[in-house]
Amino acid sequence: MFSIILLNPQMGENIGAAARAMANFGFSDLRIVNPRDGWPNERAEAMAAGALDIMPPVQVFDSLQEAVSDLHYILGTTARPRDMVKPVYAPAQAVEECKSRESVGQKTGILFGAERTGLLNDEITACHGIITIPTAPDFSSLNLGQSVLLLAYEWIRNLHNDSVIPNNPLPASLEERENLLNRLTNELEDMRFFRNPDLAPTMMRNVRNIFTRADLTEQEIRTLHGVISALRGKKTQ
Amino acid sequence: MFSIILLNPQMGENIGAAARAMANFGFSDLRIVNPRDGWPNERAEAMAAGALDIMPPVQVFDSLQEAVSDLHYILGTTARPRDMVKPVYAPAQAVEECKSRESVGQKTGILFGAERTGLLNDEITACHGIITIPTAPDFSSLNLGQSVLLLAYEWIRNLHNDSVIPNNPLPASLEERENLLNRLTNELEDMRFFRNPDLAPTMMRNVRNIFTRADLTEQEIRTLHGVISALRGKKTQ
Repeated sequence: MFSIILLNPQMGENIGAAARAMANFGFSDLRIVNPRDGWPNERAEAMAAGALDIMPPVQVFDSLQEAVSDLHYILGTTARPRDMVKPVYAPAQAVEECKSRESVGQKTGILFGAERTGLLNDEITACHGIITIPTAPDFSSLNLGQSVLLLAYEWIRNLHNDSVIPNNPLPASLEERENLLNRLTNELEDMRFFRNPDLAPTMMRNVRNIFTRADLTEQEIRTLHGVISALRGKKTQ
Repeated sequence: MFSIILLNPQMGENIGAAARAMANFGFSDLRIVNPRDGWPNERAEAMAAGALDIMPPVQVFDSLQEAVSDLHYILGTTARPRDMVKPVYAPAQAVEECKSRESVGQKTGILFGAERTGLLNDEITACHGIITIPTAPDFSSLNLGQSVLLLAYEWIRNLHNDSVIPNNPLPASLEERENLLNRLTNELEDMRFFRNPDLAPTMMRNVRNIFTRADLTEQEIRTLHGVISALRGKKTQ
């Protein structure tokens, strides 16, 4: 998983928000270069909401060069593509590139500039490519914590897509559903629901469709038997 | 694009952060139900960083039911899957589902509960499915603004992907479904279906779940009104 490098971050709150976002998605390597208000930072700790306690210690560096010396591949984040000869990636592509490099043993990192200025041209030069998050043109500003959150999310989103296990109980057997529908048909016939015999099959097909689509559980079938009995004014068992 | 519905939000800051996240990705329909500190809210405006100025006015409602009455499909967000018979989606799947419904004219919405409690079971019952964002197990808390940000991002990140368009008829509006369910509740009360008052809310929730999941069309709602009338021995219109 990529490292996050914050270059000259100004507000402790933003460092904390970045840490929190990283911890949300299981990232742990946070590096900061020349934090304006020093390190550790109380505001960062408050904003991190405990994230800094479960992560390895943040590494603090004096220069970008030192901060990335052990990495193999760095992408810089910018609000807009700059006029530089660098590949520009959307988050999904950037993550794909980092993942494929990490799969062969490279260490990757994502670099964020100071809040006010973003990355300067010299700093972008140190990067292998640029990431631009596709925001609305009339409202494009993302803060540091939000940007880190989106990139970290982008990394894990594929990992977990398949693993969301619906916690649904098994639907009832088709026989139980048939029994319910047959009973309902009989009751409706008793009550002369199907006044027009020509339309009866269509009407009943509509009713069956509703309960088929609902994928009823056994419990729900019992409930519906109770509902039918109650509406008919019969005592339920 | 989906509507965002915030139910009983407590902190104005969170409403503002949600608005900001929406504006970042071009969303504009924000609805709030019973905001604790009223509306408009200065803290929300500060946190929105101008987002509220470029969006249509936020709509404020007294009840969830009113807030969603014109929508066709709602997903509720929960930190963990609940023990309810609802489909559970990761954000990518949830967005795919909303997009394919919107492509055939349905209006969709994503519902967020109060900060402290999340969505209550009765509130989840009103939803067609649940969204769970796959965070790290040891640090899973996302705030409102972050959750909205991730879902809005998920929508725009694959704008270029085509979605499958099912050829289904439009489901009935939620108001029509509510009318049906309210009528059914009343009829069942008349017939003393809820003999044990302690179990009544659970029983009714089960019944509501069945008809929510079935995604009823207008035609089907008319059919079910007819079914109820017939079972009660009343003449249908």
